[in-house]
Amino acid sequence: MSDRQSRALMALACVLEAGQERWSVKVDREGPEALWDQLRRNESPMGERARRLDVDSVERETALRGFRFVHPGSPEWPPRLDELNATGAVSGIEGGRPLGLWVAGPMQLTELGDSGIAIVGARASTAYGDTVASELAAELAEAGTVVVSGGAYGIDAAAHRGALASDGATVAVMACGLDQLYPRGNDALLRRIRTEQLMVSEYSPGTPPSRHRFLTRNRLIAALSSATVIVEAAVRSGAKNTVAWAQALGRPVLAVPGPVTSALSVTPHRLIREAQAALVTNAHDVLAELGPLGVLQPPLVDPESRPTDDLDPSELSVREAFPARRAISVDELGMLVGLRVGECLAVLASLAARGQVEPLGDGRWRLARRTA
Amino acid sequence: MSDRQSRALMALACVLEAGQERWSVKVDREGPEALWDQLRRNESPMGERARRLDVDSVERETALRGFRFVHPGSPEWPPRLDELNATGAVSGIEGGRPLGLWVAGPMQLTELGDSGIAIVGARASTAYGDTVASELAAELAEAGTVVVSGGAYGIDAAAHRGALASDGATVAVMACGLDQLYPRGNDALLRRIRTEQLMVSEYSPGTPPSRHRFLTRNRLIAALSSATVIVEAAVRSGAKNTVAWAQALGRPVLAVPGPVTSALSVTPHRLIREAQAALVTNAHDVLAELGPLGVLQPPLVDPESRPTDDLDPSELSVREAFPARRAISVDELGMLVGLRVGECLAVLASLAARGQVEPLGDGRWRLARRTA
Repeated sequence: MSDRQSRALMALACVLEAGQERWSVKVDREGPEALWDQLRRNESPMGERARRLDVDSVERETALRGFRFVHPGSPEWPPRLDELNATGAVSGIEGGRPLGLWVAGPMQLTELGDSGIAIVGARASTAYGDTVASELAAELAEAGTVVVSGGAYGIDAAAHRGALASDGATVAVMACGLDQLYPRGNDALLRRIRTEQLMVSEYSPGTPPSRHRFLTRNRLIAALSSATVIVEAAVRSGAKNTVAWAQALGRPVLAVPGPVTSALSVTPHRLIREAQAALVTNAHDVLAELGPLGVLQPPLVDPESRPTDDLDPSELSVREAFPARRAISVDELGMLVGLRVGECLAVLASLAARGQVEPLGDGRWRLARRTA
Repeated sequence: MSDRQSRALMALACVLEAGQERWSVKVDREGPEALWDQLRRNESPMGERARRLDVDSVERETALRGFRFVHPGSPEWPPRLDELNATGAVSGIEGGRPLGLWVAGPMQLTELGDSGIAIVGARASTAYGDTVASELAAELAEAGTVVVSGGAYGIDAAAHRGALASDGATVAVMACGLDQLYPRGNDALLRRIRTEQLMVSEYSPGTPPSRHRFLTRNRLIAALSSATVIVEAAVRSGAKNTVAWAQALGRPVLAVPGPVTSALSVTPHRLIREAQAALVTNAHDVLAELGPLGVLQPPLVDPESRPTDDLDPSELSVREAFPARRAISVDELGMLVGLRVGECLAVLASLAARGQVEPLGDGRWRLARRTA
């Protein structure tokens, strides 16, 4: 794409409100320059805004602040965003591929690849939710995934912080210009992400956030990620909208359960109950859900295995029938577990071979010392 | 069944350790009297125990304490226990229909019908688990179900207490004789259930509990209930065994989630994750899961509905684009939500008809006062 085309695309991205698929379709069909000329001749308020836009100043502002404008022709453009065209509307937002993105930070958008995992949830989260989101993000980042979220209070911030705490990678997708750092209370966190990690927005510098822009932004969180994890969300929550985008994109949705006594567990539990989300409790679960998708594999050993896990039902039954501190006769054992003496002896021999029980030599057996 | 047959069955139930399906099959085939005679002639330790048994004294003890001995020929026998034959072994326990049951309390075993719901879980439960089990039991009992559990510390006791607190019905299924009231710490609770509700055991008076008997008893909890709800259980838990029996019987298993930070959430979460249990958060959810099974129906209205629930996506989108405190022009609205002016006006008209928005008469609209 020529510099002139790229410049026209940036101008269009400044004037056309994001989340309207038809504009990205029109750009593909007519080219950004023709569309921009057409828009500037338009009689509508939108045409008026196009005529008033000082494109040079937007370009200067973008460069001065160290932001870059990335678009479908750029080497840094992530192909998975193209899936947003033809995804269809969600909650009345048309959606569609962004015309372009303002990007800041040393990480390249392409580094995300398939390893982005969104963690989203309530702004008014509880200490439980913050802890879970933060630990999950830290574990996932340690395992090599990139934690994607929206930079908001609550679960978003906890997720970004968890990734940073484990020296991992994280991406904040904003509903305003990259200069805005909204919400103010997350100023230091957002500044750090913008400087050390990656911050993304389809809104030009200077654009304030709006309710509509949060909904539109949510589709980018879902689209940049291989899966979306929801941690704490009340029955009404913006996170449900991100989940809806992930579903529209056919990407897995995962939900962390919580106390049923908390209103913030309602949405995760409902998503699980209605089979719209898989239940996950930690990074191991998340990676296991994504296993077939590719690169990232969960640890192989379940930390909760125990020596009796390998016993078959009759071995387990005989093993469980042993008194903890005294020996027991084969007759008594057989009676307890409902086996004939011969069957019982066969099971005992197999348990002894596994080091679980030992014979006393007088027809009685006891638990092997190390397992008692 | 004659008194002599019933008496032979009671004698067999005293001598043959429970949970061995082949005995109940043998009783059906040979009759209790023939089997009893045969057993008394047996050279084994079991034969010795049969010869030593004073059946008169067991009958006297049963009558004196106000217990009744109920068996497959009795009017009080619940037919759903017959499903235990041919269920197959679980954890090495053969299972099978009990030879008979000792029963105490004013409730009839047949009153259970299809309305029994088991609530089981950790003995070393948390305050969270106790609260959830108790509230769930209270709500379920109020809805007309009978709360079935095992009388143990923790979740079992909380469930029984919840049912009692709402003046509902509850059944304790014991792993020892009905005179034993194990565990001692639940003495007052168990005494109350035995006097005012229903207590059940396949163990003759005087029989102490054992690890094997808990596992065997668990199949009766599952078999007497239309569904089994698990509330808090660590990775190792007896409650998993009750769940396995419910599964073997083809009865629904339901699990209440909890904080992922608690070791006692591991088993419920794992069961949900592996699609072995449905996630339930309250009595409404439980009854909804059982809906198709019959009698009990959940409340019809979801308490969480809101006026915006009925809006279609474009209505919701336009409604959400409204600023909270100021009016907005149709042009601006259309731009925000990506609709042409004509489309936008149609949506506004429909929202106005629902009392959600109102026109100011100058081309601008605002949220209707009562919804702002």
